[in-house]
Amino acid sequence: MANCSAARVASYAAPYDAPERCPRVPIPTVRSGSVRPRLTFDHLGPRTVQVPYEAQGPADAPATVVLGGISAGRHLAPTTSDPSKGWWPGVVGEGDALDPARHLLIGIDFLGGRTENGLLRPVTTHDQARAVAAALDELGVTAASFVGSSYGGMVALAFAELFPERTARLVILCASHRTHPMATGIRSVQRAAASLGADTGQPARGLALARALAMTTYRSPEEFEERFSARPLHPGQPGRTPARFPVEEYLDARGADFAHRFDTERFLALSESIDLHGTSPESLPPETLLVSFDTDALVPPWLVDELATRSGRCPRHVTVTSLFGHDAFLKEVGQVTSLLNASLPRTPEVVR
Amino acid sequence: MANCSAARVASYAAPYDAPERCPRVPIPTVRSGSVRPRLTFDHLGPRTVQVPYEAQGPADAPATVVLGGISAGRHLAPTTSDPSKGWWPGVVGEGDALDPARHLLIGIDFLGGRTENGLLRPVTTHDQARAVAAALDELGVTAASFVGSSYGGMVALAFAELFPERTARLVILCASHRTHPMATGIRSVQRAAASLGADTGQPARGLALARALAMTTYRSPEEFEERFSARPLHPGQPGRTPARFPVEEYLDARGADFAHRFDTERFLALSESIDLHGTSPESLPPETLLVSFDTDALVPPWLVDELATRSGRCPRHVTVTSLFGHDAFLKEVGQVTSLLNASLPRTPEVVR
Repeated sequence: MANCSAARVASYAAPYDAPERCPRVPIPTVRSGSVRPRLTFDHLGPRTVQVPYEAQGPADAPATVVLGGISAGRHLAPTTSDPSKGWWPGVVGEGDALDPARHLLIGIDFLGGRTENGLLRPVTTHDQARAVAAALDELGVTAASFVGSSYGGMVALAFAELFPERTARLVILCASHRTHPMATGIRSVQRAAASLGADTGQPARGLALARALAMTTYRSPEEFEERFSARPLHPGQPGRTPARFPVEEYLDARGADFAHRFDTERFLALSESIDLHGTSPESLPPETLLVSFDTDALVPPWLVDELATRSGRCPRHVTVTSLFGHDAFLKEVGQVTSLLNASLPRTPEVVR
Repeated sequence: MANCSAARVASYAAPYDAPERCPRVPIPTVRSGSVRPRLTFDHLGPRTVQVPYEAQGPADAPATVVLGGISAGRHLAPTTSDPSKGWWPGVVGEGDALDPARHLLIGIDFLGGRTENGLLRPVTTHDQARAVAAALDELGVTAASFVGSSYGGMVALAFAELFPERTARLVILCASHRTHPMATGIRSVQRAAASLGADTGQPARGLALARALAMTTYRSPEEFEERFSARPLHPGQPGRTPARFPVEEYLDARGADFAHRFDTERFLALSESIDLHGTSPESLPPETLLVSFDTDALVPPWLVDELATRSGRCPRHVTVTSLFGHDAFLKEVGQVTSLLNASLPRTPEVVR
């Protein structure tokens, strides 16, 4: 087996100069809508589903599918019709590494959960890949590069396995060909918490609890140690209120926010989909960049090394030093920008 | 500040020859019962409480208080009146490092939760130390050594702070002078899960969920990777059953077992007590051995180094290599035996 050692990049000290932003004319073309393909699901058989998508950029620019975590979606960056920020600010947007002036950027909403035709679960990363293919068909895109992070990285790997001829370059961050049992165990507890809430008429409370737990796996102990005091806010009042801790306030707030945006069935379907994920390492395309972060406990560097080694193709694997654990793909904008700039095709910079 | 570097001990390859056991006569003296002291609690003021204790060994042997995790109790090893095994088999028992023929071994049940006089919460590690002192008074023991693991290590540190004149040697495993915020965050989620269950009429389900999550912090990802397949047992049936994974079966079983042995109020009180724990590093007695395990994410070696350094006393700190995370104090019987044998006073071996 090939021995592929990962490059290590220290990011703490890496200076990042945000590029200067110039107001742009013209606004890149935006196409959005829903495609309604009939897909053959791995465990559900044939089903007609709705796949909302959004595409930004010139039709003749290199097509790049951008897929994120389970709470990410089709909206990648502000547009004239939807000025809200996308899920990956600093990385996708005007003047950024994934610039709608220089890429045809394509996002979709993942399948999973309640639909007009009943419950969509279990859903696999290969099912999501089929949905991406349907969106590409609709857009007239025959082949695309992929930038997939976390769950979206798993979907990109599944796409490359199912549709090698439609896959140009892959950049995979915080994802690998399989999960590891500790991560699966912690997610199974999250699903049990969401289910307990739903079963007892407290779905928001269960979902918030699941997300609070997930947050502890998205960040690193080192970051929390820097950020939160270990001292209680108060020790509680006998028989009235429990003790409260700074980190608990943070986790509760993140959980409550998620419970407003998500529903139980969708969370269960997507969380389970992560644990059902599996691709053959040998299906990895030659033009792949794998990015891991040293503090990522969910997708640790050793698991990405396993993919690189078993692929037999010695893809480039960069392990970046970060304080931010699994969320480093969202937080290490400078490092991610450098890696994407060096890896993806794009149209030359437009002079304005 | 003193620079106290930890000794590192590799345990994977360390051979451990269990000592030969010989049937013994006489049976060590056993004294058990409950003491009912009136204690002044940190947050509850004066309260009369019941402190069950059990002592085994000759009255003139060195007194050694043995304190374990939140689910450990007073029963340290089989006796004629209670032949059930203790919570630390292989370490406490005839011929073991903590041998009732050579130590006066003393255990107590921790305070916390529902009592005949109402709810005992919040309860601190210093409150537990006061309960230990009351048991020592009852036994006529003026000073004792302590072997404290996990929560019991915190209680031992609190005892040494409150009663330095009654503290001989300390051996502290998997505990330190404070917690760290990630560990507190994960425990706060456990408490929220137990509370959700209790509030919705499903206390056993909530408690099992809390314990399943706790198990993921007691063991290491490396152990789970060796032990469990990442592949699902089955992918679930649409609308009927969710996917199931090997690690999930294990966590569920451990959770259900705990829910049979524990109740919500006691779990909440003891879990919270861990997060309320704090001792002054300067209160550490000179005769202290600190033991940490390299894969322990709850009480990582760096946190124990912090105690050692801030104590200003350069206590011995040994970090043992183990696959078993926080539970290594229970699993690494050979290493723990060697460390205890080298650290604790005892009466000479009895020749039979």
